[in-house]
Amino acid sequence: MPVPVLRFDQGRLTVLDQTRLPQETVLVALEDLDAVDEAIRALRVRGAPLIGVTAAFGVCVAVRAAQERGEALRLGRAAVERLRRSRPTAVNLFWALARMEDKLRELPDAGWREALEREARAILAEGEAQDAAMVAHGLSLLQPGARVITHCNTGPLATGARGTALGVLIAAHRQLGGLHVYVDETRPRWQGARLTTWELAGHHVPHTLMVDSAAATLLARGGLHSVWVGADRIAANGDTANKIGTYALALAAHHHGVPFYVVAPSSTVDLALDSGADIPIEERAEEEVSTPEGAPLAPPGTPVWNPAFDVTPAALVRAIVTERGVIHGPRFNLRAALAPAPHPA
Amino acid sequence: MPVPVLRFDQGRLTVLDQTRLPQETVLVALEDLDAVDEAIRALRVRGAPLIGVTAAFGVCVAVRAAQERGEALRLGRAAVERLRRSRPTAVNLFWALARMEDKLRELPDAGWREALEREARAILAEGEAQDAAMVAHGLSLLQPGARVITHCNTGPLATGARGTALGVLIAAHRQLGGLHVYVDETRPRWQGARLTTWELAGHHVPHTLMVDSAAATLLARGGLHSVWVGADRIAANGDTANKIGTYALALAAHHHGVPFYVVAPSSTVDLALDSGADIPIEERAEEEVSTPEGAPLAPPGTPVWNPAFDVTPAALVRAIVTERGVIHGPRFNLRAALAPAPHPA
Repeated sequence: MPVPVLRFDQGRLTVLDQTRLPQETVLVALEDLDAVDEAIRALRVRGAPLIGVTAAFGVCVAVRAAQERGEALRLGRAAVERLRRSRPTAVNLFWALARMEDKLRELPDAGWREALEREARAILAEGEAQDAAMVAHGLSLLQPGARVITHCNTGPLATGARGTALGVLIAAHRQLGGLHVYVDETRPRWQGARLTTWELAGHHVPHTLMVDSAAATLLARGGLHSVWVGADRIAANGDTANKIGTYALALAAHHHGVPFYVVAPSSTVDLALDSGADIPIEERAEEEVSTPEGAPLAPPGTPVWNPAFDVTPAALVRAIVTERGVIHGPRFNLRAALAPAPHPA
Repeated sequence: MPVPVLRFDQGRLTVLDQTRLPQETVLVALEDLDAVDEAIRALRVRGAPLIGVTAAFGVCVAVRAAQERGEALRLGRAAVERLRRSRPTAVNLFWALARMEDKLRELPDAGWREALEREARAILAEGEAQDAAMVAHGLSLLQPGARVITHCNTGPLATGARGTALGVLIAAHRQLGGLHVYVDETRPRWQGARLTTWELAGHHVPHTLMVDSAAATLLARGGLHSVWVGADRIAANGDTANKIGTYALALAAHHHGVPFYVVAPSSTVDLALDSGADIPIEERAEEEVSTPEGAPLAPPGTPVWNPAFDVTPAALVRAIVTERGVIHGPRFNLRAALAPAPHPA
C-alpha cells in the first residue's frame, strides 16, 4: 500500500477514510476522541483488527491534552468506556481496549503518555506479525490456479498490515500463481465492490466482481477450490460472526462440498463465549439498505432490517487459520487449541 | 393499481416505466417496434408474464403502419424475430410470440389488424384469469399470521393483473390476515427494494426490506412459514430459472426446513426442456453491478459477472403453483401434470 491505512506520528492519528475509496484517497486526522469514535461508527476505519488498533491509538489521542497522570487516567478511562460502545460485534475492539485499560491501571507518574503509545504501537506491531504468520499458514491450504470466492474486505485495509483472508489470497497470487478471486460486492456497504476489488487490482490479482447472491450459482457451476473470509468474533466452538452474507455463502459452499476457510488473528477469538448464539449482532441504520449511495430506492418509510453481521456455525467451517496455525474442523475446541497463549515478546 | 401497468388503446401501447418506480410514475408510449424492444431490454417492462403480454402487443404496434395484409405479414414476422432476441430466459416471451406467429400464419385478408389485436388481448385476458386461479390455489398453502420471504417482484407489476407469488401474498393479507412479508432487495436491479415494497405498501401489507444475503440469517433465527418466488422458466422436471439470488434463498430455506414455493402460469413451463441445465441464462451489463444507481462504486475496469437469473433444482422446491392447481414436489413430472393443456375458450 503506498497510502498508509493508519499512522500515528507526534501524537497525531491519521487514517485513510475507507468510505471514500476507491474514488478518492482521503487521509483524515482524528484530532480528538469524538473524531475517533465517529470514524469507527461511520466505517471510515473498519475491519475487526484495524478497529482494535484504531481504538488503542484513540485512547492515546484522548489523553493527549492531559497535563498530569490523574487527568490522563480519567480521560483514558472515559475513552475506553466511550469506544467500547462504538461497535458491538468485533471483539478485537474490546480486546485492544482491555489492553489499554491494563496500561492505564499501571500508569507511571512520568512518561505515562509514552507508556500508552508504546502499548498501542505494540498492538499494531503484533498485528503485523500475526498477519504475516496467518498468510504463511493459509498458503498451505491453496494450490496454483485456484479459483476462490471471498466476501467483504479482509485485505491490508482491514488490518493495517497484510490482511487476513485476502492477505492469504494476495500472497497466493504471488507465490503460487494462477489465482482467480471472485469478489462478493457485500451489501449493504459494498466493501467487496469498493475495497477488495481495489486491493486486488493494486496487487494485479485477476478477479471478478459479482452480486452476493450470485456466489451460490457460481459454486453450482463447479470448479471452485475454496471460499475465504475473515471474522469479527469467533466463539470457543468455532462459530464465526462475520459480515452479513457470510452465512449464506458458507451454506452454499457446504452444499457444493467446497472448503470454507476463516482467517483471523487469535484476538478475534472470544474464548469467553461457548457458541455463536452469545455474539451480539450489530444492527445498523435503515438508510444503508433503503438509500444506497444516497439514492432513495425504497419508498419513504419502508421498514428495514439491517443486521451488519451473521453467525456461521462451526460445522460449515473447514478450517480456521490464526497466527498460531491451521485448526481443522468441523469440530473446534478453540479453548484447547489456542491456550495457553504465549506471552508476546 | 390506480395506474395501469400496460394499456393498449386505439392501436397505441402505453406502459408504466418500472425503472422509474417508486420515485416517479411515468407512462411511456411505445410508438414503434424499436421502443417496444428497448422497453423490454431496459426492464421498463419486466416480469416474465408481462414481457409476454408486451411482446404480443408489440407485434400489433409493429404492423400498425401496414397498408395491406402482405406488408402486415412481413412486418409482423420481423417483429416476432426481433422481439425473440430481446431477452433470452423468460419463456413466456417465446410462448406469446409463438401465438402471435400462429395468428400471422392464418392472417385474414380483411381485418388482419383486429385479428392480431384480438390475440394479444386474449393473452392478456388469459393471464388475468390465470393470476386469479393461482392466487386461489396458492392461498391453500398459507395460514393466518404467516411470516414469509419473497425475492424480486412478482406482483401486479410483473403480470399486469394480480401477480404470481406476490399476488398470493397480497390476497393472503386480505383473506387470512396477520401476514408479514420479508422482502429481498434483489440486486442488481432492486426489484424488491423498489417495486415489491411499493406494491406491499399500496396494499397495506406489513413488510420489511433486507439485503439479499440477510435472508439466510432470518431463516436461521426461525419462525418463518414459507418462501415465495415466481419463475422465468420452469423445465419439465421442475427445475426453476428465476431472478439471481433465488437459488441461494432456496438453499437456505431447504437447510432450515422452510417450504419453498414457486408460483407461475403454465406458460412459464417449458415442457421441451428436460431439466434446468438447458435453460439459457441471460448475462447483463457490468454496469448494473459496478455502477449501481449511477454511482461508480467499483474501480474503473473491474471485471464483473452479472447473470440475471439462476436455476433452482426441483429438489429444493416444495410445490409449484400454476393456474391449474398445486403440484407438490420434491419430484415433478410437469409433462404429466400439465398435459393435455385445455384449449383456451
